[in-house]
Amino acid sequence: MQAEYARIPFADLSTHRLPQQVSSEQAVLLADILPTAYEVGVLNGGVRPGDTVVVVGAGPIGLAAILTAKLFSPAHIVAVDKAESRLQAAKNLGADVTLTPDRVPLGAIRALTGGLGADVVMEAVGLPQTFELCASLARPGGRVANIGVHGKPATLHLEELWIRNLTITTGLVDTYSTPALLDMLLAGQIDVSTLVTHRFPLDDIMHAYDVFADPARTGALKVLLTR
Amino acid sequence: MQAEYARIPFADLSTHRLPQQVSSEQAVLLADILPTAYEVGVLNGGVRPGDTVVVVGAGPIGLAAILTAKLFSPAHIVAVDKAESRLQAAKNLGADVTLTPDRVPLGAIRALTGGLGADVVMEAVGLPQTFELCASLARPGGRVANIGVHGKPATLHLEELWIRNLTITTGLVDTYSTPALLDMLLAGQIDVSTLVTHRFPLDDIMHAYDVFADPARTGALKVLLTR
Repeated sequence: MQAEYARIPFADLSTHRLPQQVSSEQAVLLADILPTAYEVGVLNGGVRPGDTVVVVGAGPIGLAAILTAKLFSPAHIVAVDKAESRLQAAKNLGADVTLTPDRVPLGAIRALTGGLGADVVMEAVGLPQTFELCASLARPGGRVANIGVHGKPATLHLEELWIRNLTITTGLVDTYSTPALLDMLLAGQIDVSTLVTHRFPLDDIMHAYDVFADPARTGALKVLLTR
Repeated sequence: MQAEYARIPFADLSTHRLPQQVSSEQAVLLADILPTAYEVGVLNGGVRPGDTVVVVGAGPIGLAAILTAKLFSPAHIVAVDKAESRLQAAKNLGADVTLTPDRVPLGAIRALTGGLGADVVMEAVGLPQTFELCASLARPGGRVANIGVHGKPATLHLEELWIRNLTITTGLVDTYSTPALLDMLLAGQIDVSTLVTHRFPLDDIMHAYDVFADPARTGALKVLLTR
């Protein structure tokens, strides 16, 4: 929110009463990134207890997917990202295996799953090559949940995938899960505090944008602006 | 089956006792094409009452998909094929709209659905361009069930589809539905008789292959060989 006043259409459906125990800093993460990761990644992907889950891309959305995938008690959560700092954040949030893309993720995932592949793979980058990586990592009968915002088409290797009983989903967040996420926040089931790495007063907004635009250098995940 | 004797591994799971009222001619269609169309197309696609369903490809598998989609009472079943003879067969089996690919299917489907697109689209050809057509015909929140056997990759237009809440499935038949299909055959719920267009004695097998290999000229759907 960068305005002092805002008109909220359909406010009955898109605004929620905040319990006093929930801080604005926690709540703001439930407006977009948590429900996106939970609805479009974890729920569309159908994560179940005992699953091996792979999250490709450990930015804020991928990290929120790791955080909320844990609610379904998967056996393994594997995070794939180029940046070691993000893989460390993924570990802190519950990933038990972290891989950079050059570490041959397919071999690592197969080794982890008796040769089968992952039950659920989530795409949280938005590039053709990461989507194609996701499709290759899923086991027969597996599920690929695309969360990434894409600007280009990807290649779907139907010559391999037609026989693999795969389910691929795409989606934009509805925020139907925000009330449930609020309840989970209150109950202490999810801890979103580590997703905010930087805090700035509103007057410092230009600097805040610079920090957010260069995460490789700054380690920025979410940047919080306050009055 | 082209052998006098055959060894059937796991026969308890893959053979079924035929009720006397079911002819061999009916039953043989429940070994492969009916369960493939039903499981990989209709059930994976999640056809529901009131849906607009599109089946691209009106060969035997596509026709079996039309026949079994009707069990879920869709509002419209649209068949797309190049061959008028197959579109006529599709009409006989329950399609209420038939289109050739050059009749701009996207416009026709949008006109039928208030601009939204189809609820369920089934691919029963196995070519990149028909798969891509299917993905373009689905409404936001729609489902694309691939039944076709593909030899080449297709282009997945994620730059358009990422936001459309699409579900895409692939699959190979399990035949878990064969007992249920047998029950439906017995109850008169499905009529598979029109799928067999030609009958030959086993001695005429070379001729039978010729007929089956040239459906555009012969109008062949399924060719039955008997002793």
